[in-house]
Amino acid sequence: MASEKTLDDLFLDTLKDIYYAERQIVKALPKMAKAAQSAELKAGFEKHQVETEGQIERLEQIFELLGKPARGKTCDAILGILEEGKEIMTEYKGTIALDAGLVAAAQAVEHYEIARYGTLKTWATQLGMKEAVSLLDATLQEEVATDQTLSKLATSDANQKAA
Amino acid sequence: MASEKTLDDLFLDTLKDIYYAERQIVKALPKMAKAAQSAELKAGFEKHQVETEGQIERLEQIFELLGKPARGKTCDAILGILEEGKEIMTEYKGTIALDAGLVAAAQAVEHYEIARYGTLKTWATQLGMKEAVSLLDATLQEEVATDQTLSKLATSDANQKAA
Repeated sequence: MASEKTLDDLFLDTLKDIYYAERQIVKALPKMAKAAQSAELKAGFEKHQVETEGQIERLEQIFELLGKPARGKTCDAILGILEEGKEIMTEYKGTIALDAGLVAAAQAVEHYEIARYGTLKTWATQLGMKEAVSLLDATLQEEVATDQTLSKLATSDANQKAA
Repeated sequence: MASEKTLDDLFLDTLKDIYYAERQIVKALPKMAKAAQSAELKAGFEKHQVETEGQIERLEQIFELLGKPARGKTCDAILGILEEGKEIMTEYKGTIALDAGLVAAAQAVEHYEIARYGTLKTWATQLGMKEAVSLLDATLQEEVATDQTLSKLATSDANQKAA
């Protein structure tokens, strides 16, 4: 079967998935920064927005390495995850638990990205795409660091006040 | 404001979210096990299904500790994540890349759970719910171990064949 799908197709499909996801995330982050009550959390979201813009550029570089146009593919997962973040912003608006909810919402986003970048890095390694591996790894390290920063915020400021 | 929402409300809402999610996952796992091509991946999904049943019971114990009925709340995130898994099963059916796609889909599920159980454990600690902390931690450790098993499968069998 000459037309059988391979890991190359899966890699490209998943690249489109996370490209779409990142472009949704970069639109959601300013709203989360605006909603955040603590200055620390607000600054964290703003910093991650700048990082996300760089992550989108890295994905565009990988599309270029593949000789494919940078195109997203609707990612139901990120739409669902961000929808839950929006619910938190509405239901907990003005309450003492808002920041704790925002941190949780952001960690769900980070973990989706950690899963996807981990997968893409593994596949790029197997496909012998060295440049893509290092681009994907750079983003993966940023996502892991962001998740750790959020965990620290969760155990310090925002949540302690809410408890 | 006597009616202001607190971390207790956020904890309960998020408990309902993951309870709904786990009950969706336990329905999806047999389909993923059936679809898996390698015996190792099939066995992995079957083992995780049994674990998931135990995780649902732990959540029910926490509802009981809270004196609340065990009730789910639609979780858009898991619906989106599982929808992407279904797409993989359809689009990659019968191809050499199917198992790699299934592993990736399962890792997205695991990471959602790791995010949620991590958050719930942090909040249970802050709320002084010792029993809940140990129940949540037991599940969190299982999810982390499952993710690691999937990572090993990703770098060994299924994907190597697909590359």
